[in-house]
Amino acid sequence: MPPPSPQAVVAHLLAGDAVTRWLGAEVLEASAGRSVLRMVVREDFVNGFGTVHGGITFALADSAFAFATNAGGFISVAVDCTISFPAAVRPGDVLVATAVEQVTTNKLAFCEVTVTNQDEQPVAFFRGTVYRTTRPHALAAGRGTEGSAA
Amino acid sequence: MPPPSPQAVVAHLLAGDAVTRWLGAEVLEASAGRSVLRMVVREDFVNGFGTVHGGITFALADSAFAFATNAGGFISVAVDCTISFPAAVRPGDVLVATAVEQVTTNKLAFCEVTVTNQDEQPVAFFRGTVYRTTRPHALAAGRGTEGSAA
Amino acid sequence: MPPPSPQAVVAHLLAGDAVTRWLGAEVLEASAGRSVLRMVVREDFVNGFGTVHGGITFALADSAFAFATNAGGFISVAVDCTISFPAAVRPGDVLVATAVEQVTTNKLAFCEVTVTNQDEQPVAFFRGTVYRTTRPHALAAGRGTEGSAA
Amino acid sequence: MPPPSPQAVVAHLLAGDAVTRWLGAEVLEASAGRSVLRMVVREDFVNGFGTVHGGITFALADSAFAFATNAGGFISVAVDCTISFPAAVRPGDVLVATAVEQVTTNKLAFCEVTVTNQDEQPVAFFRGTVYRTTRPHALAAGRGTEGSAA
Repeated sequence: MPPPSPQAVVAHLLAGDAVTRWLGAEVLEASAGRSVLRMVVREDFVNGFGTVHGGITFALADSAFAFATNAGGFISVAVDCTISFPAAVRPGDVLVATAVEQVTTNKLAFCEVTVTNQDEQPVAFFRGTVYRTTRPHALAAGRGTEGSAA
Repeated sequence: MPPPSPQAVVAHLLAGDAVTRWLGAEVLEASAGRSVLRMVVREDFVNGFGTVHGGITFALADSAFAFATNAGGFISVAVDCTISFPAAVRPGDVLVATAVEQVTTNKLAFCEVTVTNQDEQPVAFFRGTVYRTTRPHALAAGRGTEGSAA
Repeated sequence: MPPPSPQAVVAHLLAGDAVTRWLGAEVLEASAGRSVLRMVVREDFVNGFGTVHGGITFALADSAFAFATNAGGFISVAVDCTISFPAAVRPGDVLVATAVEQVTTNKLAFCEVTVTNQDEQPVAFFRGTVYRTTRPHALAAGRGTEGSAA
Repeated sequence: MPPPSPQAVVAHLLAGDAVTRWLGAEVLEASAGRSVLRMVVREDFVNGFGTVHGGITFALADSAFAFATNAGGFISVAVDCTISFPAAVRPGDVLVATAVEQVTTNKLAFCEVTVTNQDEQPVAFFRGTVYRTTRPHALAAGRGTEGSAA
């Protein structure tokens, strides 16, 4: 069975992804090895400093990473991620996360995600590595064995 | 003005932290350089694989990291974080994030956070570095200059 | 063919490892999932600040990581590493790198390495992830296909 | 005293940097926030797999990172680094490490380094964060307080 199209994969992932939908993230682009997400920062995204919780910015980047690395049609699962926070994010900011797969080997893919705000200022530098399985996304059915590199 | 007590700082941070409260995380321990959070994984924490979104696990670890590194009373802001995902997390799991500050210098602190599930199996290894400011947490008042390493 | 013993694997790796021998690192312990290396810091390990080059400390940690994750007998190759530098290292210091594999899945292993100096002060926190192949170390013969996750 | 020129800083750093000189790395470019190093991979750079030791590739990237972040004239010290290894390196390869500072705040700078081989294939993705001191590089004299973020 050939893998499904990138758009079908991302639509499938997004439909089941309660977190990305809670974030209110919108998919601006999705192709094999690339995705772009956009999100408006809400008041309920703050931490105890009144700035945006790092987990929110990470989650947006992580979703872009998952969409970019899975859009090729085979299930890929996150192994390691790193994130740096060069600037604070605040409610009302509009974030864009751009994920680009840089190198794909037989078993792994290496992806960079940059998150910028409405002033095109970087607010997060994210890198992620996935383990690439040989299981295609089964768009219509059960996901019993998905989501694990074990 | 001496810095406030660790418990007062963490209570202050948690009161303003909409994300940690949305997660339903409970503070099991909080002292200078150490915190432990516990969370029950809800159905709405999943990604498109039906497993728990990496951003949720990261957010829990990041909150534990923030509490541990700020409980000493001075404002500390996250610079770099890394996370690895050795096992999938699923709805119904109960996660415990234990954050321990390992080294504190004049300007920086280095913290390790391990997240385990109800079987004491590690599901995330997190490390974070903060920049330590010399501003004490002003528990009663404005936070206009908090939350930025700039 | 069963995999060779941990000691045999590490002796084999060390024999071919020009960098670890140049460092003067000594193997204090080697077992499946664990290794400890010790090194005296030489004058020629410095950077332009007169302190020890980060690449030297990283190399020591990386060797301990490779030995710990390969000692089980199957070829494992590094995917991602992170290192933090909580204190400077100086010529004359004696470093000990302790690598411990924390979780091993079918395809991956997650390892932590701490480097301390002669005062038992941490000078580096390192984490590394390997991709685990199913090829045993061929101790007597060619290594044509080793060392690649591709 | 104004900070010295980028070229003077890098020449000063390189003169004292025994490791970068041992690597045989050549400075192709050096300006405030950017540096490019080139290195031919020698036989004595290998690990026990017969491929190049991760510490060698890291060291090259770390030197490029140090030069880029110090060339502005003030002493900056490494805090956290991450590296991913998308492809193996072999003796005879020619590596180019390009370091670009992406964001500079009052206290921190965030830098990306990509290492490619003679086929322009990426062999390492490196990120590093420095703590920026306010001490200018004292090009003629002692370095007693350099090289520590403490």
